[in-house]
Amino acid sequence: MSDTTRRTILGAAAGLAGAHLITPASSAESQPPALLGRVENGKVSLPPLHAPSEGGEMLANPDPVAKRLGIAVVGIGHLTLEQIMPGFAEAKHVRPVALVSGERDKAHAIAAQYGVPEKNLYDYKNFVAIRDNPEIEAVYIVLPNALHAEFTVRAAKAGKHVLCEKPMATSVAEAEQMIAACRQAQRTLMIAYRLQYNTAHRTLIDVARKKTYGELRLIEAVNAQNDAAPGQWRQIKALAGGGSLPDVGLYCLNAFRYITGEEPIEVTGRITQPKGDPRFREVEDISHFTLLFPSGVFAAGTAGYSMHENRRLRADATDGWFGLDPAFGYDNVAMEIGHRASPANAREQSTFTPRNQFAVEMDHFAECVRTGREPHTPGEEGLQDQRIMAAIYEAAAGGGVVKMAPSDRLDATRGPAPDAQNG
Amino acid sequence: MSDTTRRTILGAAAGLAGAHLITPASSAESQPPALLGRVENGKVSLPPLHAPSEGGEMLANPDPVAKRLGIAVVGIGHLTLEQIMPGFAEAKHVRPVALVSGERDKAHAIAAQYGVPEKNLYDYKNFVAIRDNPEIEAVYIVLPNALHAEFTVRAAKAGKHVLCEKPMATSVAEAEQMIAACRQAQRTLMIAYRLQYNTAHRTLIDVARKKTYGELRLIEAVNAQNDAAPGQWRQIKALAGGGSLPDVGLYCLNAFRYITGEEPIEVTGRITQPKGDPRFREVEDISHFTLLFPSGVFAAGTAGYSMHENRRLRADATDGWFGLDPAFGYDNVAMEIGHRASPANAREQSTFTPRNQFAVEMDHFAECVRTGREPHTPGEEGLQDQRIMAAIYEAAAGGGVVKMAPSDRLDATRGPAPDAQNG
Amino acid sequence: MSDTTRRTILGAAAGLAGAHLITPASSAESQPPALLGRVENGKVSLPPLHAPSEGGEMLANPDPVAKRLGIAVVGIGHLTLEQIMPGFAEAKHVRPVALVSGERDKAHAIAAQYGVPEKNLYDYKNFVAIRDNPEIEAVYIVLPNALHAEFTVRAAKAGKHVLCEKPMATSVAEAEQMIAACRQAQRTLMIAYRLQYNTAHRTLIDVARKKTYGELRLIEAVNAQNDAAPGQWRQIKALAGGGSLPDVGLYCLNAFRYITGEEPIEVTGRITQPKGDPRFREVEDISHFTLLFPSGVFAAGTAGYSMHENRRLRADATDGWFGLDPAFGYDNVAMEIGHRASPANAREQSTFTPRNQFAVEMDHFAECVRTGREPHTPGEEGLQDQRIMAAIYEAAAGGGVVKMAPSDRLDATRGPAPDAQNG
Amino acid sequence: MSDTTRRTILGAAAGLAGAHLITPASSAESQPPALLGRVENGKVSLPPLHAPSEGGEMLANPDPVAKRLGIAVVGIGHLTLEQIMPGFAEAKHVRPVALVSGERDKAHAIAAQYGVPEKNLYDYKNFVAIRDNPEIEAVYIVLPNALHAEFTVRAAKAGKHVLCEKPMATSVAEAEQMIAACRQAQRTLMIAYRLQYNTAHRTLIDVARKKTYGELRLIEAVNAQNDAAPGQWRQIKALAGGGSLPDVGLYCLNAFRYITGEEPIEVTGRITQPKGDPRFREVEDISHFTLLFPSGVFAAGTAGYSMHENRRLRADATDGWFGLDPAFGYDNVAMEIGHRASPANAREQSTFTPRNQFAVEMDHFAECVRTGREPHTPGEEGLQDQRIMAAIYEAAAGGGVVKMAPSDRLDATRGPAPDAQNG
Repeated sequence: MSDTTRRTILGAAAGLAGAHLITPASSAESQPPALLGRVENGKVSLPPLHAPSEGGEMLANPDPVAKRLGIAVVGIGHLTLEQIMPGFAEAKHVRPVALVSGERDKAHAIAAQYGVPEKNLYDYKNFVAIRDNPEIEAVYIVLPNALHAEFTVRAAKAGKHVLCEKPMATSVAEAEQMIAACRQAQRTLMIAYRLQYNTAHRTLIDVARKKTYGELRLIEAVNAQNDAAPGQWRQIKALAGGGSLPDVGLYCLNAFRYITGEEPIEVTGRITQPKGDPRFREVEDISHFTLLFPSGVFAAGTAGYSMHENRRLRADATDGWFGLDPAFGYDNVAMEIGHRASPANAREQSTFTPRNQFAVEMDHFAECVRTGREPHTPGEEGLQDQRIMAAIYEAAAGGGVVKMAPSDRLDATRGPAPDAQNG
Repeated sequence: MSDTTRRTILGAAAGLAGAHLITPASSAESQPPALLGRVENGKVSLPPLHAPSEGGEMLANPDPVAKRLGIAVVGIGHLTLEQIMPGFAEAKHVRPVALVSGERDKAHAIAAQYGVPEKNLYDYKNFVAIRDNPEIEAVYIVLPNALHAEFTVRAAKAGKHVLCEKPMATSVAEAEQMIAACRQAQRTLMIAYRLQYNTAHRTLIDVARKKTYGELRLIEAVNAQNDAAPGQWRQIKALAGGGSLPDVGLYCLNAFRYITGEEPIEVTGRITQPKGDPRFREVEDISHFTLLFPSGVFAAGTAGYSMHENRRLRADATDGWFGLDPAFGYDNVAMEIGHRASPANAREQSTFTPRNQFAVEMDHFAECVRTGREPHTPGEEGLQDQRIMAAIYEAAAGGGVVKMAPSDRLDATRGPAPDAQNG
Repeated sequence: MSDTTRRTILGAAAGLAGAHLITPASSAESQPPALLGRVENGKVSLPPLHAPSEGGEMLANPDPVAKRLGIAVVGIGHLTLEQIMPGFAEAKHVRPVALVSGERDKAHAIAAQYGVPEKNLYDYKNFVAIRDNPEIEAVYIVLPNALHAEFTVRAAKAGKHVLCEKPMATSVAEAEQMIAACRQAQRTLMIAYRLQYNTAHRTLIDVARKKTYGELRLIEAVNAQNDAAPGQWRQIKALAGGGSLPDVGLYCLNAFRYITGEEPIEVTGRITQPKGDPRFREVEDISHFTLLFPSGVFAAGTAGYSMHENRRLRADATDGWFGLDPAFGYDNVAMEIGHRASPANAREQSTFTPRNQFAVEMDHFAECVRTGREPHTPGEEGLQDQRIMAAIYEAAAGGGVVKMAPSDRLDATRGPAPDAQNG
Repeated sequence: MSDTTRRTILGAAAGLAGAHLITPASSAESQPPALLGRVENGKVSLPPLHAPSEGGEMLANPDPVAKRLGIAVVGIGHLTLEQIMPGFAEAKHVRPVALVSGERDKAHAIAAQYGVPEKNLYDYKNFVAIRDNPEIEAVYIVLPNALHAEFTVRAAKAGKHVLCEKPMATSVAEAEQMIAACRQAQRTLMIAYRLQYNTAHRTLIDVARKKTYGELRLIEAVNAQNDAAPGQWRQIKALAGGGSLPDVGLYCLNAFRYITGEEPIEVTGRITQPKGDPRFREVEDISHFTLLFPSGVFAAGTAGYSMHENRRLRADATDGWFGLDPAFGYDNVAMEIGHRASPANAREQSTFTPRNQFAVEMDHFAECVRTGREPHTPGEEGLQDQRIMAAIYEAAAGGGVVKMAPSDRLDATRGPAPDAQNG
């Protein structure tokens, strides 16, 4: 670029009345015009690029790396490698500082990939030593379900906060034990119900609670997938606690509860366990259940392990329906609304800016740990799901209706709602 | 968990014939069953969770942090803060090692957020000093268009590889100068045509080139947005080189070229510059152009700066149409196909796993730098777009048809196609 | 048009080698070029306008009016006025020749609107006189459910063929009585399961039966609507026989049976009857049921009377899912398919040329009457649904699983499939 | 049904306070409860079945057959047989009373199918004789474009009202001649712009005119199809007047005008005529044009004859976009809206109750004839399109911008808007 051209550029920028461009002093080489970026408490903001009709823009502004909550990830399976480790890179308030695994080579490889120091690799034998590592402020338990209780208790005893994958446990007793241990140790316990922190689900909850389309009457959901040939711990009852119900059906169940905010008073259940399919020697394939809520809302959920991915939810209110399809996957969750807009039937699909669901969930956890606030999905939230799953299995065994106690208020098992901007 | 329960778990795992679970030796506390994860050359693989119908799973397996290509980001505006810095966190082969900015406070804040060492902060005056910093292997130029040429030339002279944002420059001459400088310095020059590395766009290219729906006949695309009130450098001709055409219309133009692989032989153009709207004192609002390709394919593109976001493309072939909607945004790009499937009209929408487009693009750049391979979108790709944009403006000024030379082969301005797994 | 121009036109047409235009002899005034239309047995065909990629075109070619099956419509409520009378205008093989109604003024008005002669108006008292009217070859019974049996029996005794709306009756006994009466009178009895004749539903059945996406595992459907304030016969148990189940839930039930071709072996049921809502003094609001089929397919259906229209169905197979949304309405029924098409998740929506569903259904009925063929949905099809609805209500009352006998073959209660071209 | 049951039924109905059921007096046989249907001026209304949320229900209530406008259909090709004759069956105010065709056998067959008396069959030689047939009140001209003018003039001279297919003519002069002839004969002339009477298009016009999403800025539309091998009159310039532009491109052009209500001041055009394809010996394949309107709205339309059906339109306003896809076909026209609904991008699709477009259009014509009202799309509407098409061809030939005169008011060439309930 010639000097003349450069001067033209700078002149152009300088001449722009009311512009948010600042022209730097002339120099031998060009200096780009500065944006009027503002920096406050380490957060940067910029003047908007787009008109107000286009929706607000938001810079990421993650916490400085050194200030983020240090987490030890316990278990390095599919979920950890496909979602959680990449999720740290999108998170603002957490960082992975340690790994716990029984497979040494794998742990080393992953540590290198994500910058976890070698000294912070643990196995299940020396797990107790995390107690002495101040970098580790919390653990994220991503183990087979049957081990959630034991490792939560051990972590709490080691003085660490606990984020535990769902299902919380394989029994009501285990869940109660976990809550007690964290309470005793005065550590935060949060169950990783990732979708309660997802913008699409939170928007759906808003639509339901604000009665935008009238009174809620019915909710139906399916969460189904096609599992690989046998061999996974999810197919071993002693490790998983059940089949499709606690693994994927739980998402339907939990959604019915957070959409209504109520607890069911009547539960039914049905399961199938196809003979001859080695995946279902120990656990159910299809699980189906219905819940009746005190307000009269009826909900029906179905999960399965033997069919192509189908994850959807729809809530029917008096004046319209709203739902999610796909509803329960790791990405592309979209909201759908159907209503009458005479002379047409209108159907609206809402798509959201992609965000790693585990990043959002972990950031909420970090904020709770830092501020002492109760998580939106504390142990009690997981415990109630354990109770209902036990009732579903009981109903499925006996064929009848199992009665349950209603809660005395909405969202009785939940802490304050997550910040909107987190989604 | 009691010892009895634990033994049951381990027994269950052990008893599973053909399972990919390995039972660890018994111990005082539980040890989760190990997955048969494999580690090869630092890459981890796991047995699949899902049936083959569900699509292959792929672990991220990023390069160890220390081995990634070190990049200095030049310019810290919206694009850098909203897309590129977060993109590094999703990339496998690159890492941000330095920032170049005229705004010191902002640079410090961002450096802390993303772990860039303070010593690696540069401003435009001391930019030349990057020459002496071996951590900086390449620069990513994210400056106003009119400065692309100057900083590319300076970076090449400093011995650094260059990834430069689009549009490559504000004139054909600048583009030629950039190519020459990088060639002379024997440095890689890649233009950041992010969508040529996006899975949805690559899938669309495949559908077109394989003639899945017959011969291509027509392509039409729109890329429009609603800009904020005046003050942005994009509205200053000397900085931007033009209005909607080089900024967003370029995506339509570039797509027409990479879908066909051809170069246009006839070009027309139309622009509007609404009087009284201060955003359009210097640059056009709407730009519209048509291209005629040697094969007979006709393409029409439209861009605008004064309307709600609308970014779409549709290609019409003899037996079906295929397109993208949204086509050109940073996320949720989806492919659409329309064809006849008697007795119905079938319309297919394909959604893709979200990936930061800049992460994918930067990874391709890093692979090219490491292997010496020519980038898929080298300087020549940008140069040809500059030529066509000049023809469009010429046609818009005169109202006629501007003739251009066809290329002698398909994809004449492009290097080898990016690896499929990158998308 | 001048003579010169006309001659040019004719010359142009004549000069077109291989054209399907025939140039008429010259005359004082222009004669349009003739298409090479063919007439065979009163059916007209024309050369195609569009390329083969565009799907075959099909002329309507209805039967000459005088040759169509003469039908007396019994009952002139919403369904008759909104769907069936307009449906005659789109039908090929039937015509409305008589009306039976208790409201004389209304009958006169409708007769005038649709060209039904006044002499062919009957009321319920002189219904028996249809026996003596040879123009009336059949009746279409569109009365409250509880009257289906009586009027079917009376029509059969009067020597008329019977097309009867669904649900067939309000009890198994009534259904059996209807079948017996028509058999004895040697008259055709068809139940008006309109969707079994709908192209979208037939296409879905094809996808399921051909196992395009593997083995079927699960089907779920909802058919819900929001009824007006009390006063409809549908809310009176003695007239309707039940609430949402026999009215709209029946569509889910029937679809589960025709998609699989099987009969259920286990049935469960749940109903709700909200207190204080005058619409539900006598009948249920929500009805929910599950069916287990011998092949292992599990199906769950839900119907409701108190929520915005939601009519959908989805079938889950091992390698993909397919469904209809909307599924059960009078128009815009669309098919959806979801499957994996790496690297994308593909979702296909199929739309169909609109056709009045009652026109298609009545045409099938007419063909059966004319040829003596058994209808695809004879009385036996309705009877089996009555049996299953009785089991659902029994299960809902007792809370358990009701066992049923499987059928010995697929489609055991159905006649030959309707001609494809009927849809 | 036993007497006891029947009494229960009647009792149930009678006991329903506030019900709209009337119980008939008891009799030997059952009498269904009457609906409180009302009859006024031959129109029937019924109490609503569904809650207000579900949208109003509307009975068809066609005019008595004998009172409908008698129309002679001139030309029995694809359009007549596939759309117009079936359309009469859905119309309320018209009936087909005569056919005019040069192919006697075909005319006889069609007459039988649709109940047109043999005596009312005419050919082009004895066309003038329609003058003496009082049953024929109007003609619908469905001939090749080049014959529209001649037959319109002849019909007007025979004292008949004229509904003429689009394009109105093959030149501006012809169009002016048609207007003059009908004016002189004091007969109604309406051009069959079917989509200006379609509910989806009218809803779109409403959204644009009410500025629901702000100021309109851009409209883009495509109307393309894949024509059969050569031989159609549409491919003969002397009969069609042009290729894709007057046939399908006209829909884009007309839509740009009725969405804005304005007339263009600048026009450009491009056409392609692929060598070697016998379909395009005489007429263009692709036609592309741009219009600039006085308000600043820019519009770009594209039509084609050599590609799979693609008929779409999208209008871009400052705060959202709205469009139709498919836009121009005979059925399934759907409206789409895109806007920002933070934190989501919302996209709404509206579907409409299917109605034969020609039925709606003919009903409007009949109302105008009966009331003397000017049609919404009189000859002047067609004339203006002829003027603009001439400018497009002129621009395409010369490559420049053709200037045109703006109109002095909105909708300057249109009569009063059609009644909403017609759609």
